[in-house]
Amino acid sequence: MTAIDQSDRFELFSYWRSSATYRLRVAFHLKGVKQRETNVDIDAGEQHGEAFRRINPLGGIPALIDHGPGQSTVPLTQSLAVLEFLDETYPQPPLLPADAHGRARVRSIAQMLAADTHPLVTPRVRKYLAAAAGFDADAWRAWQIQWFGTGLRAVEARLAREPGTGRFCHGDQVSLADICLASIFSVMRVFKISFDDIPVATRIVAECEKLEAFAAADPARQAGAPQ
Amino acid sequence: MTAIDQSDRFELFSYWRSSATYRLRVAFHLKGVKQRETNVDIDAGEQHGEAFRRINPLGGIPALIDHGPGQSTVPLTQSLAVLEFLDETYPQPPLLPADAHGRARVRSIAQMLAADTHPLVTPRVRKYLAAAAGFDADAWRAWQIQWFGTGLRAVEARLAREPGTGRFCHGDQVSLADICLASIFSVMRVFKISFDDIPVATRIVAECEKLEAFAAADPARQAGAPQ
Repeated sequence: MTAIDQSDRFELFSYWRSSATYRLRVAFHLKGVKQRETNVDIDAGEQHGEAFRRINPLGGIPALIDHGPGQSTVPLTQSLAVLEFLDETYPQPPLLPADAHGRARVRSIAQMLAADTHPLVTPRVRKYLAAAAGFDADAWRAWQIQWFGTGLRAVEARLAREPGTGRFCHGDQVSLADICLASIFSVMRVFKISFDDIPVATRIVAECEKLEAFAAADPARQAGAPQ
Repeated sequence: MTAIDQSDRFELFSYWRSSATYRLRVAFHLKGVKQRETNVDIDAGEQHGEAFRRINPLGGIPALIDHGPGQSTVPLTQSLAVLEFLDETYPQPPLLPADAHGRARVRSIAQMLAADTHPLVTPRVRKYLAAAAGFDADAWRAWQIQWFGTGLRAVEARLAREPGTGRFCHGDQVSLADICLASIFSVMRVFKISFDDIPVATRIVAECEKLEAFAAADPARQAGAPQ
């Protein structure tokens, strides 16, 4: 598939290791749409600067501006909301199943990771815990392992027992659930965290990473990544 | 509007003060659909018991089981996923606007609260911070205020400056964003937390609470609430 060049239209505010940005990179690639990226160095705190706060007052990436003619330029934020926007704007291939129960299952698995897991391990939480509770690197690592582990083991329990699971989280078609699952693995790899008791999740992420859309979104392959 | 009695079909696992359950109570009421509730005492830790873990391995409420003929009985979890399910199953009145940008804005505001704010202040986080970092009641309260404040001030900044804001978060129709915003206020009220620097959000929640669907979901009016 040749990508449609929409780099004049879609400006993605991103950072190489951001797992929420990873989700949008995968979705753009699956949809065959080329965007352009503007780097926000979250390790240097650029997301809290005045300039970026005008784009996202919560100071998080990704954010997406749609510069298309006649489109609202209010920045689109929150990765799951932007994923749904992309799925509605470019329906093929679909990132959600056709039936309401299936859609609910995919969204639920996605949110177990993107909503109930990932927000706990963001830089602003680390900053607060360091300042208010004296968390050092070891305490932060234990915190990361606690919440990545809690979320992933709960997802594993569902993937292992629910009949909807197939080659991917839901049947044999890539969905929002796979994108979120792989995004969590991608950021854990950056932090050298892994679990050996989530075999179904691990198998599914390996399936995903056979696809160029996922491989190309690997943090190590992004501009700004350490050599 | 007379509610359609679907209490044989929909079993909602709930708790009186759960803000995520509040969201579903409001949505069922707006859609005119009557469900039945099964209590899970999260203050007593019932969500972590073996019985409830079979329903939701993450140990969170709400969960919804659809006992309708021919329906999957895999429990529906994650409040935003269930809200979308209800909106797809009962399209009137819609909880999302018709245009893709509007839908993305509503979902983003909803997720700023339900995904980036609320998961930080759940009982399992409190338990970890008490055990691993010695958080007492004061430290936990400071933590709650930090994250409720961060999320709500970011939402306030958007509501105050973005042209989409109307009587409610997005125009003059109640949406998922209002439901999530009011749900955060409902749980803050239980914990006697409030902020005086979020006037637009405060005005919108007051508009919501004029509606019976929101008033009826008030934690103080649920079975099990303290007298």
